[in-house]
Amino acid sequence: MPLRFLTAGESHGPVELVIVEGLPAGLPLDADDINPDLARRQGLNATGKPYPGASPRMKLERDEARVLSGVMAGMTIGAPVAIQVDNNDHDKWKGKAVAPMTIPRPGHADLTGALKYGHRDLRMSLERASARETTARVAAGATARKLLGAFGVRVGSYVTQIGTVRADLSGLPLDARLTAAGESEVQCPDPESSAAMVVHIQEAMRGRDTLGGVFEVVALGVPPGLGSHVHWDRRLTGRLAQAMLSIHAMKGVEIGDAFENAGRPGTQVQDAIYKDPAGTLTRNTNRSGGLEGGITTGEPIVLRVAMKPIATTLTPIDSVDLVSGEPRPIEYERSDFCPVPRAGVIGEAMACLVLADALIEKLGGDSLAEMLQRFEALRRARLSDFDLDNTPTVFWP
Amino acid sequence: MPLRFLTAGESHGPVELVIVEGLPAGLPLDADDINPDLARRQGLNATGKPYPGASPRMKLERDEARVLSGVMAGMTIGAPVAIQVDNNDHDKWKGKAVAPMTIPRPGHADLTGALKYGHRDLRMSLERASARETTARVAAGATARKLLGAFGVRVGSYVTQIGTVRADLSGLPLDARLTAAGESEVQCPDPESSAAMVVHIQEAMRGRDTLGGVFEVVALGVPPGLGSHVHWDRRLTGRLAQAMLSIHAMKGVEIGDAFENAGRPGTQVQDAIYKDPAGTLTRNTNRSGGLEGGITTGEPIVLRVAMKPIATTLTPIDSVDLVSGEPRPIEYERSDFCPVPRAGVIGEAMACLVLADALIEKLGGDSLAEMLQRFEALRRARLSDFDLDNTPTVFWP
Amino acid sequence: MPLRFLTAGESHGPVELVIVEGLPAGLPLDADDINPDLARRQGLNATGKPYPGASPRMKLERDEARVLSGVMAGMTIGAPVAIQVDNNDHDKWKGKAVAPMTIPRPGHADLTGALKYGHRDLRMSLERASARETTARVAAGATARKLLGAFGVRVGSYVTQIGTVRADLSGLPLDARLTAAGESEVQCPDPESSAAMVVHIQEAMRGRDTLGGVFEVVALGVPPGLGSHVHWDRRLTGRLAQAMLSIHAMKGVEIGDAFENAGRPGTQVQDAIYKDPAGTLTRNTNRSGGLEGGITTGEPIVLRVAMKPIATTLTPIDSVDLVSGEPRPIEYERSDFCPVPRAGVIGEAMACLVLADALIEKLGGDSLAEMLQRFEALRRARLSDFDLDNTPTVFWP
Amino acid sequence: MPLRFLTAGESHGPVELVIVEGLPAGLPLDADDINPDLARRQGLNATGKPYPGASPRMKLERDEARVLSGVMAGMTIGAPVAIQVDNNDHDKWKGKAVAPMTIPRPGHADLTGALKYGHRDLRMSLERASARETTARVAAGATARKLLGAFGVRVGSYVTQIGTVRADLSGLPLDARLTAAGESEVQCPDPESSAAMVVHIQEAMRGRDTLGGVFEVVALGVPPGLGSHVHWDRRLTGRLAQAMLSIHAMKGVEIGDAFENAGRPGTQVQDAIYKDPAGTLTRNTNRSGGLEGGITTGEPIVLRVAMKPIATTLTPIDSVDLVSGEPRPIEYERSDFCPVPRAGVIGEAMACLVLADALIEKLGGDSLAEMLQRFEALRRARLSDFDLDNTPTVFWP
Repeated sequence: MPLRFLTAGESHGPVELVIVEGLPAGLPLDADDINPDLARRQGLNATGKPYPGASPRMKLERDEARVLSGVMAGMTIGAPVAIQVDNNDHDKWKGKAVAPMTIPRPGHADLTGALKYGHRDLRMSLERASARETTARVAAGATARKLLGAFGVRVGSYVTQIGTVRADLSGLPLDARLTAAGESEVQCPDPESSAAMVVHIQEAMRGRDTLGGVFEVVALGVPPGLGSHVHWDRRLTGRLAQAMLSIHAMKGVEIGDAFENAGRPGTQVQDAIYKDPAGTLTRNTNRSGGLEGGITTGEPIVLRVAMKPIATTLTPIDSVDLVSGEPRPIEYERSDFCPVPRAGVIGEAMACLVLADALIEKLGGDSLAEMLQRFEALRRARLSDFDLDNTPTVFWP
Repeated sequence: MPLRFLTAGESHGPVELVIVEGLPAGLPLDADDINPDLARRQGLNATGKPYPGASPRMKLERDEARVLSGVMAGMTIGAPVAIQVDNNDHDKWKGKAVAPMTIPRPGHADLTGALKYGHRDLRMSLERASARETTARVAAGATARKLLGAFGVRVGSYVTQIGTVRADLSGLPLDARLTAAGESEVQCPDPESSAAMVVHIQEAMRGRDTLGGVFEVVALGVPPGLGSHVHWDRRLTGRLAQAMLSIHAMKGVEIGDAFENAGRPGTQVQDAIYKDPAGTLTRNTNRSGGLEGGITTGEPIVLRVAMKPIATTLTPIDSVDLVSGEPRPIEYERSDFCPVPRAGVIGEAMACLVLADALIEKLGGDSLAEMLQRFEALRRARLSDFDLDNTPTVFWP
Repeated sequence: MPLRFLTAGESHGPVELVIVEGLPAGLPLDADDINPDLARRQGLNATGKPYPGASPRMKLERDEARVLSGVMAGMTIGAPVAIQVDNNDHDKWKGKAVAPMTIPRPGHADLTGALKYGHRDLRMSLERASARETTARVAAGATARKLLGAFGVRVGSYVTQIGTVRADLSGLPLDARLTAAGESEVQCPDPESSAAMVVHIQEAMRGRDTLGGVFEVVALGVPPGLGSHVHWDRRLTGRLAQAMLSIHAMKGVEIGDAFENAGRPGTQVQDAIYKDPAGTLTRNTNRSGGLEGGITTGEPIVLRVAMKPIATTLTPIDSVDLVSGEPRPIEYERSDFCPVPRAGVIGEAMACLVLADALIEKLGGDSLAEMLQRFEALRRARLSDFDLDNTPTVFWP
Repeated sequence: MPLRFLTAGESHGPVELVIVEGLPAGLPLDADDINPDLARRQGLNATGKPYPGASPRMKLERDEARVLSGVMAGMTIGAPVAIQVDNNDHDKWKGKAVAPMTIPRPGHADLTGALKYGHRDLRMSLERASARETTARVAAGATARKLLGAFGVRVGSYVTQIGTVRADLSGLPLDARLTAAGESEVQCPDPESSAAMVVHIQEAMRGRDTLGGVFEVVALGVPPGLGSHVHWDRRLTGRLAQAMLSIHAMKGVEIGDAFENAGRPGTQVQDAIYKDPAGTLTRNTNRSGGLEGGITTGEPIVLRVAMKPIATTLTPIDSVDLVSGEPRPIEYERSDFCPVPRAGVIGEAMACLVLADALIEKLGGDSLAEMLQRFEALRRARLSDFDLDNTPTVFWP
């Protein structure tokens, strides 16, 4: 696929890094396009205050992106864009002797990573497995978001569930959900649910436990025709699903109301096609979540993602010391109580990367000017595409 | 990734085809390894009878695989394996003039495919978008299944929900679920639910409607250490999710009980680690669905997939004739009323391909003998891996 | 990269097959677009007569392509295109018991393939390693050639050396070389050299030896701007080189006069830039072979490829019987004496595939109509691209 | 392919960067493994003195690698390895307003890059197109070299031709060539030729011209069985060729004596197979350059690469000012007169990356310990692999 990226960095190593290869030339880009998303990932809401239940680490450091390559005079040049974020916490670890970690925490990559790579000290698993890595993804995603923005595509997210508190957002338009989420301490568009979620998190903290939840990533203004039905790995449905479940702690994803739709009859699950007065084909519903046959319909893409609660709890969980072979409870490593409000922006980043990739596939991607010109031609072409006559055809002679 | 495949074929074209590249040499393989899965995909259950609500097409044709390459003297030789299945239905279409299809069916790729590729006759979308393509995937999956079998990995599936009928399988071991599903008309392990599902399908047929549902794909005997946490696209969680949602009509996927776990406290979602009398690390639970940090734990992998109801209903759905521009209901194209019982084997096929890919990554994949020898070494190595001493280490000098 | 293909088939298996994924929709395509290249690959020149020194196998079978998918009503639909060619020779091998081949032929994959894949019978190496596989590549290449043709790109080849006979083609335009090659028994544009080559081949046959040689693949009408300098694996220079040396028996490749240019001073190796009366930038030379910085210049691409002589000679070469461990000369397997005249079309096919891939990258590749429209915009845009003013810029603030 | 990398950085931007993804865990690695190759790339020979004809830039800066990720306690952890090298020259460019460059230099990507990406200032092409990018490749290559070293594979290079001076190295073993090259001012193993080359470069400098040449990259101790014949893009021959011609200014490559072998009869081009007293299969020659059927034979790999002279000459070359449209000679940009002695290490780096990739494919690549154990098993297995009996087989029933 045309847009690719590699991330690098350990949780307490010197930096988080990403190289994004395949961005077109001519896209205005600088650190200010990236830093707001980094702040959101750190759990700072619109007021600059941290979310309840966030790790104290966010107080230590404010992530700042440095664009190291691929941009000249404020614009991309078609070359790989490298972005670096310092790990301020690194200084505390530099030169410090650390006793080996030998009690694997269930739910993390501690044990599975060590088995795979032959690590003897579990920190060699967890340093890379840490969700700190998503810093680099969010930085990469911000470049993709900037590209999508030039085509009128807007990607946002909001929280619908934390622990047992579920928000009912029915009737609230997607646009309004994004706005309202920005005003919530926990990114939930419904003020009542939002307040209940805050209380629920505080209870979990007192109970020395953690909470997961559900968030939705939506993409507005997506043109029809991205992705494809012609081969399994071109289907955008699958590519978006991989992107979501490639994120730490994400274990479930649905496009639109997939699990509910599975229980409905077929006549209530499709989006009927109509023609508006201007002659444009439209839908009055978006049950498909914006994708038919692995291709965007032009309606908003709606992804719902299930995040499990953080595996590291103040309440000890049973494990085994790999040195002594004795049963031992896990030892606490500093972490969030409920990172769900911070997770949406990571989902957005991954969705942006997949959508930008598909957009470049559709338009070719050497320069923004070229892409915009072609995009305009697509917009114009729509209505006249179907000047079919009714002559029968022999498909297979 | 080391194992790759391309499928080809249209629904009414002469053949469905797949080339699988990257299988090791020395794997016994012939059509008999593939045909049973093809029969299951066609909706024939263990008794050879079609599932209720299946398309009449399955009566027309019994899919038969022909292995065209990559196998000599009954064994793979490391070369690409091509498998071909004839479309018996093709004869009816050969040489026949067909009036253009101009009314897009909501929920299919009819319109999105045509917009993307500039088709004027919607059949040029739907011929390739048809789920007939999964024939080729099931054939490919059967080769991967054969490889996995040599390492003791077994992949199966069962239905848990059809329309509004949900089966409660709690307490039933995975193994027993697979066995019981084979005896159900609709692949559901619970006899009572199974009977209710049959009734529900018959109601839907009478109501000129269709039904979706939920099935689970499970992989037993998977070794720990497949996949990786080190990069987003190596995480098996995401790769499996893509594989599932790359299948026609699949819109949701969860690993284990992801959406339920999102509502539980962290202390109830992890799988504590214990040591059994033989000194092996074990888990008493499998809430993770077999994956921690994007890596297999050695516990069964459990994937739950939501399938939407078939979009083509006998009850007309609103659409627009693209030639006249007038509102027109969709025209019926022959199809299933409820393909959920047939879908599981497709999910299995895709899971097999992803797992075989990850296994080859782990072991290298030139010959089965080499892989087996390395696999044996892995098994032996487990226990002695962690002879750590407790010397503190400076990670970053 | 957007255009990908997998080939399958053994030399004496039932078929050669290829699936080409990524061709745009709307490209007229049928077997007649493919068969002429297959005939050329079989060593039939314009008069339909086999080249001197060709294997008797070509008399046995005339390759015929069958397009099995991806084409409806004579046009591609954006779906994978599968092409099958029967191995007529297969009937002789079907059901026949064959004694194991145990004496590896130096210069073939007999031994290296067996070591890698653990084969015990060397035929399991050579069946797939045979150049018969290039049938599938030539079929794939013909689809790419058809696409390139729609943009005015023409790819051909000619022989410049067979054994010790070198043709001097200096002064002969590329166009004329292609025409003249078509009239030569050995694809050499210079009639005198051509005659000498025929004699040289006859001598080699009498001497129970084989001959290699050199051919050139040229692409005319290639637009500027294909490939890229921004990343190593986007550079067209390398991609073309891989394509050429991925062909059986090809061991050297140069772009333009690379090895001669290595001995010339810099002032004599570049292609100065001029402006013609119409205001278009032009070059009077093409020392670069059509590529600067890994990107096409718009001048013809010229690739020179060195082919080693066929490793199977009637004169025995020393080897070892792997069963007995005793020294044994190789046993003769039917093959060409000098396949160089047949090899050019394979080089063309691979060049076509790389160039079509790069063209789709540049233009996006969903439909031919879309690509042509964008191509036209590119052509128009060239001259006005450089309306620079002379304001100094701060690249790195 | 399992080992992948992305480079980033502009010639005068702040840094050169590379992320290498796919290295096994447990490989000792630090900057000292990388810096010697960086010094060689900068044109510093064993005595620390710059080569004759090198750019003055090398006096400005001594490249120093910083390993930013993927290494803990001195060993790789399986995670992506990021390496950064500062561009000391950047300080001079930071904040400086630069007049646009509007006269494209023939032979560079100035014009082709600008056409492709729509740049208006040619510096936006050349900053990324500069061979400064090879710094990042050499750093990546050094990590691959470290891995190969653990398996006894050694990769080196030497110069055989500069301008018109060709060294005759016949009779000199590869090992001795590498040693002697290290003692030459221009990396040429033959002292007499070396001296002549120095004189030739000085003449070119006085003549305000530049020189190209030819170098050879050799890999010693490569195990048999890397690469494959089963698919075009697995053939190591092509992968190595791409790697070489992906390097700036490299336009020709041959494996072994490909172009000479093209003129020899088949009986003189193969490497006969013998058995040594220990029972091991051996070759007395290496005409194949270490590759048969796209697979390594176990003999040294020998790659010969043609480099064109630097396109930027003090003697002006004709071009056109893109602003005025007037003919203008190129303006000089500081560069080498003859970078051939510096180029070999870049070729080595790319060869190391391809070979390490192929080694990981063969062995799997999670940890060095696992790889070494499997490698040992391969070594032991060789001789007993071929305990064939002579029972005839039916390949195709």
